[in-house]
Amino acid sequence: VDDLLARWRVSEDLTSRARLVNAAARLFVIEGYRGVGVNEICAAAGVQKGSFYHFFPSKADLATAAVDKLEADLCELLDEAEAAAAGPIEKLRASAAVVDGIQRRLEQSVGRVVGCPIGNLATELSAVDGPAAARTAAVLRRWEARVAEHFRAAAAARLLRPGSDPAELARALIATMQGMVLLAKVSVVTLDDIPASMNRVVDSCVKKGRAA
Amino acid sequence: VDDLLARWRVSEDLTSRARLVNAAARLFVIEGYRGVGVNEICAAAGVQKGSFYHFFPSKADLATAAVDKLEADLCELLDEAEAAAAGPIEKLRASAAVVDGIQRRLEQSVGRVVGCPIGNLATELSAVDGPAAARTAAVLRRWEARVAEHFRAAAAARLLRPGSDPAELARALIATMQGMVLLAKVSVVTLDDIPASMNRVVDSCVKKGRAA
Repeated sequence: VDDLLARWRVSEDLTSRARLVNAAARLFVIEGYRGVGVNEICAAAGVQKGSFYHFFPSKADLATAAVDKLEADLCELLDEAEAAAAGPIEKLRASAAVVDGIQRRLEQSVGRVVGCPIGNLATELSAVDGPAAARTAAVLRRWEARVAEHFRAAAAARLLRPGSDPAELARALIATMQGMVLLAKVSVVTLDDIPASMNRVVDSCVKKGRAA
Repeated sequence: VDDLLARWRVSEDLTSRARLVNAAARLFVIEGYRGVGVNEICAAAGVQKGSFYHFFPSKADLATAAVDKLEADLCELLDEAEAAAAGPIEKLRASAAVVDGIQRRLEQSVGRVVGCPIGNLATELSAVDGPAAARTAAVLRRWEARVAEHFRAAAAARLLRPGSDPAELARALIATMQGMVLLAKVSVVTLDDIPASMNRVVDSCVKKGRAA
């Protein structure tokens, strides 16, 4: 899928519920959670407002479903990139490449840096009551856990400097990613800086002579 | 100033313009830029709406003035903490302590982690046309430049590992700070993790035996 937004296309072969989820995922990525209303989502999905409330009690409930869809897509991209990577360090570099690909394709489609689809929603939903915020934060936690797994595998294979803490490194990698994407969104850094900074976190813990 | 919000108090000895700026700074920190309207700001400032438009053509123009105020307050806190620090590495640790103090005091006053006052506004304003976004992003750039200055001083004093790049380290420190504050806002990490991660970036480049 070269155009990332195509993943959230509203097509006729989808159920009303799936069309609402895709329209919401796409609009939330482009405009943010507070930037779109239920009416706009229904119009984009080609679904009546009455049907909307049949499926979702509120916009926040739809956001929860949209976050599940965004996580599934992210995991598909990560799985694919990691499967092609030889070892744990390469899998970590693959994470940076996936983020790079997502950011570049979104910038191409939308015409500006929209930020991290998950990070943006987590931030906006943190001000909204209900389970949607917790669900979105959980995606970031699972992403961190996935990265920690690779750092642990690297430590077990004696690829890391003595004293490296896989959990700390995973947190640093996710924080660097979110921080750099935020700085790219506000034009303080360029898109190139995002994978570069992520890879620097990875390289910082790799034993001398092992770094590519 | 123990209650950080007191810096943006609306008091009778302030001009109408200054009251509007303080009310906006305070409300933007708590509710976000899109979370408050001109009416609410006028009410909080005790200023008529007609006067508002006498001073500021739009909410975005008021945001620009509020960002100047937030930057002045940040710089005052950084100047104070850095003046008490012995050398460049201590000044860098002082930055982490300032961020820690800001986040803790805001959480105490508001009752939740509101995020970085500057980072939040930069993110929200990036979607708004006009010079307000550029002005806010410039604050983050100046903060990065201030941190880079300390890393350069540390390099000149031969405190850093060979091969350390002050500009890269400064970017990593600001990205880590923004990323960790975002993760704290969405409850993926705790407030304690923010200065810990920032200090880890600093410690990572300090020569063995120099780290405190």
